[in-house]
Amino acid sequence: MLVLITYDVNTQTAAGRKRLRKVAKECVNYGQRVQNSVFECQFDTVKFRQVKAILENMIDKEKDSLRFYNIGEKYKNKVEHIGIKPSFDVKDTLIL
Amino acid sequence: MLVLITYDVNTQTAAGRKRLRKVAKECVNYGQRVQNSVFECQFDTVKFRQVKAILENMIDKEKDSLRFYNIGEKYKNKVEHIGIKPSFDVKDTLIL
Repeated sequence: MLVLITYDVNTQTAAGRKRLRKVAKECVNYGQRVQNSVFECQFDTVKFRQVKAILENMIDKEKDSLRFYNIGEKYKNKVEHIGIKPSFDVKDTLIL
Repeated sequence: MLVLITYDVNTQTAAGRKRLRKVAKECVNYGQRVQNSVFECQFDTVKFRQVKAILENMIDKEKDSLRFYNIGEKYKNKVEHIGIKPSFDVKDTLIL
């Protein structure tokens, strides 16, 4: 299934930027960074559960927001894009 | 249907911040800002087409990225949240 992971972190602190890098590095193991804080990942049910647990432990739940959208298997006609398609370097903090 | 709109803009320029504010103000007419650049909107097919055209005209396609995810009608069990749930002021630029 395609799972969209969206992430909001306060990057004003070094700790926040570090959390963002960690989350991004984790997410690109499973899919593609399509925007600064939006990742499209391919999961089965077991992997999805595992990744949620991993990311939940990475973020600061008092400061960060993490959302998962299960787009399902037939997602090709459910996704539309307008504008630039940047290629992200996952090692960067990417404060755009 | 629930449509997720995700938006990446370069907010280093005043023009970019203005575009972000315009897009955010437009999107909250249709739904909720759930993260800095993630909006959950309720559309029918006609409205969805209209909003895409409006937003396409607002952004700078050379600099900004706009994505639409059609989550469908039965979305309640497709969305999961971890962490804070901030309430956004749409008038702010929200560079987090």
